[in-house]
Amino acid sequence: MSHQSFHPPLRTLMGPGPSDVNPRVLEAMSRPTIGHLDPMFVALMDDMKVLLRYAFQTDYDLAMPVSAPGSAGMETCFVNLVEPGDTVLVCQNGVFGGRMKENVERCGATAVMVEDEWGKPVDPNKVEEALKANPDIRLVAFVHAETSTGAISDAKTLAEIAHRHDCLIIADCVTSLGGSPLKVSEWGLDAVYSGTQKCLSCTPGLSPVTFSPAAIERIQNRKSKVQSWFMDLNLVLGYWGGGAKRAYHHTAPINALYGLHESLVILEEEGIENACQRHQHNHSALRAGIEAMGLSFVVDEACRLPQLNSVTIPDGVDEAAVRSRLLNEYNLEIGAGLGPLAGKIWRIGLMGFASNQTNVLLCLGALDAVLTDMKAPIKSGVAVEAAMKVFAS
Amino acid sequence: MSHQSFHPPLRTLMGPGPSDVNPRVLEAMSRPTIGHLDPMFVALMDDMKVLLRYAFQTDYDLAMPVSAPGSAGMETCFVNLVEPGDTVLVCQNGVFGGRMKENVERCGATAVMVEDEWGKPVDPNKVEEALKANPDIRLVAFVHAETSTGAISDAKTLAEIAHRHDCLIIADCVTSLGGSPLKVSEWGLDAVYSGTQKCLSCTPGLSPVTFSPAAIERIQNRKSKVQSWFMDLNLVLGYWGGGAKRAYHHTAPINALYGLHESLVILEEEGIENACQRHQHNHSALRAGIEAMGLSFVVDEACRLPQLNSVTIPDGVDEAAVRSRLLNEYNLEIGAGLGPLAGKIWRIGLMGFASNQTNVLLCLGALDAVLTDMKAPIKSGVAVEAAMKVFAS
Repeated sequence: MSHQSFHPPLRTLMGPGPSDVNPRVLEAMSRPTIGHLDPMFVALMDDMKVLLRYAFQTDYDLAMPVSAPGSAGMETCFVNLVEPGDTVLVCQNGVFGGRMKENVERCGATAVMVEDEWGKPVDPNKVEEALKANPDIRLVAFVHAETSTGAISDAKTLAEIAHRHDCLIIADCVTSLGGSPLKVSEWGLDAVYSGTQKCLSCTPGLSPVTFSPAAIERIQNRKSKVQSWFMDLNLVLGYWGGGAKRAYHHTAPINALYGLHESLVILEEEGIENACQRHQHNHSALRAGIEAMGLSFVVDEACRLPQLNSVTIPDGVDEAAVRSRLLNEYNLEIGAGLGPLAGKIWRIGLMGFASNQTNVLLCLGALDAVLTDMKAPIKSGVAVEAAMKVFAS
Repeated sequence: MSHQSFHPPLRTLMGPGPSDVNPRVLEAMSRPTIGHLDPMFVALMDDMKVLLRYAFQTDYDLAMPVSAPGSAGMETCFVNLVEPGDTVLVCQNGVFGGRMKENVERCGATAVMVEDEWGKPVDPNKVEEALKANPDIRLVAFVHAETSTGAISDAKTLAEIAHRHDCLIIADCVTSLGGSPLKVSEWGLDAVYSGTQKCLSCTPGLSPVTFSPAAIERIQNRKSKVQSWFMDLNLVLGYWGGGAKRAYHHTAPINALYGLHESLVILEEEGIENACQRHQHNHSALRAGIEAMGLSFVVDEACRLPQLNSVTIPDGVDEAAVRSRLLNEYNLEIGAGLGPLAGKIWRIGLMGFASNQTNVLLCLGALDAVLTDMKAPIKSGVAVEAAMKVFAS
C-alpha cells in the first residue's frame, strides 16, 4: 500500500458548521509547536482567557477552551454541575436539547423536559410552570441558538426565571457566540459552552466555556467526584487556572489553540457589535434573494438567527440531489435538515468569516441555477438581483 | 485592550511531548477546511483508518482517532469497557497507571492495583498472582511505555496472561506508537490508545485508538449505557464506522485530522521498522554522550525506551535552573521528573521527527555547556564527541 498527502478541494462552507475559516487562523495553526508548559505558551493562555471574556461578554474569571469539540463542552457543563439523583430541567426545541437530556441521564440524574416545536424558541412560561411544579430542580439547561432549526431563545428571561427558582442555568451558545448578541454575565448565565467552528471562523475541535462563581462553588462542593477525569474542572483548572505555575493535566492542543487565539484577536479587531451587525446585514440580503425566489423561512423573523437560515424546500424537489450538485458544480456546501425537519429544509449558514457578500451572491446564484435546471417551482433569475439591492442600500 | 497575533519562538522539543512536529504536518493542518460530512472528507477518514491499522500493526476493523488528547483516549477505553460494580486490575509503575485507577473508580468500579517501582517494567508474575487471587476480574490495564519514567513493559506477555484468565486488556501506547515495536493484533491487545504528539511527530490534540472484536462485543453487550455521551463508541462508530453514509455525532476536528493523516503518510513512507531503528540509533548516540559526562540512566537498558530518556541529575544541581537556561539560551525544552522522581531526573525525549542527529548533538552540547558553567560534577567537553563516534560508526 502507499498513501498520498491529502489536498482538500476549496469549498465554500455555508452549512451549519464548520464554516469558512479565516486564512489568518489557518496560517496561525501552522506556526511552530511549543510545549504546553512553556512560559510563552502560558502567557498565550492568559491572553486567550482575556479574549474569551470579551467574546462571551463575561466578567467571570473562568473562561477557557475545553480541548475537544462542542459536544465535549456540553458534557463538561453537565458532568461538573449534575450529581447522581439530581433532577434537571431541560428545554428542547431542536436536536441539541435532546442531547442535553442524554447527558443528564448518563450522569445518573432525571431530566424534566420542556418541549417546544422545532423552529420555535423556548417558551419561558412553560419553564416557569415546570419549575413551580418541580421545586427540587436546581439546574436548568437550554440552547440559546438552535443550530438544527435556526431559532434563538430569550436567554436573559430564561436566566431570570431560573435564578428566581434558585436554579443555575446552562446555555448552549455554540452557534450564537460571535454572531448574535450574547452577554453572559449581564444575563447571569452560569455555565456556557460554545464551539470554534461557527461564528468564530476557526477550525472545529475546541469548545470555549465560561462558568459563573456560583457554578464554580457548586462544583467545589460536590458530594461525588465528577465522573469524567478528562473533563473534571477541579483538575483542568490546575492547568488553566491562574498563577505562573501550572500543573500538568493533559497535553493542550497547542496549534489548535494558536488558531483559536487568532480568531479571537480578529473578533476583537472587528468588535462584537460590528460582527453581529454584519451577520444581520448579510442575512437580510440572503433573505431578500430567498424570498424573491418564492422560498420561505422556517423560523419567524422575531427569533430567527441571521447566521443559520432554515429554508423550506420547494415541492417535488430532491433536496439531497440539490446539495450534491451545489457541492460538485459550485464547491458550495449547505446543510440538510435533522430529525423531524430532515428532507423538509436546507440549512444555510452565514457564520463568521463566511458571512460576506460574495458567499450570499454565490449561494443565491448557484441555488437559482440548480433549482431552475431541475425545473423546481421557483421564480428564476431574480434572487441575486434582490440581494444586490440590499447590499446597495 | 488590544491583543496581538501570537508568534511562538522556534523551540527544539526534547521533553516528554509534544515533540518537534514535522513541517509537512504543520503545512497540512493549514489546508482549507472542508465539511465533516463532505465525501472527500469521508474518503480521508477511510484512508486514515487504513494508515492507523498500519501504525498500530493491527488487523482490527476499529482503528480511529478520538477527537481529543490522549487522556480522552484513555477515558474512552475505560468508560466503554468498564461497568459499575466491575473489578479491574490496574498495573502501576508510573504516573499513568495512577490515572487509570482514577478512571476505573470514576466508572463506579474497583481497581485492584499491581504496583511496581517507578522506572521498572510491570512484573508479569505479580499480574498472574493478582488474577489468580481475584477470579472476578475481566479487565486488565497497563502502560506499555511509561512516559513518566521511560520504561517499557512486555505487552505480549501481559496480554497472554490476561487472556489465560479470561480478561480483556487495555494498553496505554501513547509513547510507544511509532517509536517502539508494537504489534497490537499479534499480541492480542484488546483496547489501545495513543497520542499524536509523541513519536507520530504531529501536534497534540488527538488520540488514535484501536479495539479488538472481543472488546467491541463487550461494549455492544453492556448492561448500562456508557457514562460519557461524547466518548460512547456505540455512537462514535455511527460516524467513524464503515459505509458511505455517516451519521453526525460530533463535528470532527478537520484540520487536526489533516495533520494526523500527513504524519501517518510520513510513517508509512519511512516504514515502522526503520522508524524504530532510527529511535534506537539516536538513543545510542545520546546515551554515549550522557554516560561520557558521567551521568546515568534511571531505567535498565533491557527495558529502556529509546524515545524517553530519564537521566539522573548530578548532585547539588538546581535542575529547574538548568531547564530554564536550556530553554532561554538554547530554545531547547527537556522535561522534569514527576511524582517520586520530581527533582531527581530529567526526561529527554527523542520522539518522532525530533529523534535526529542534530537534536542529539544540540542537547548534549547545551547540557554540557550549562552544567559546566554551573560547576556541576560532570566530565566536561566530551559528550558531543562520544555521540559523534556513534553516529560515525
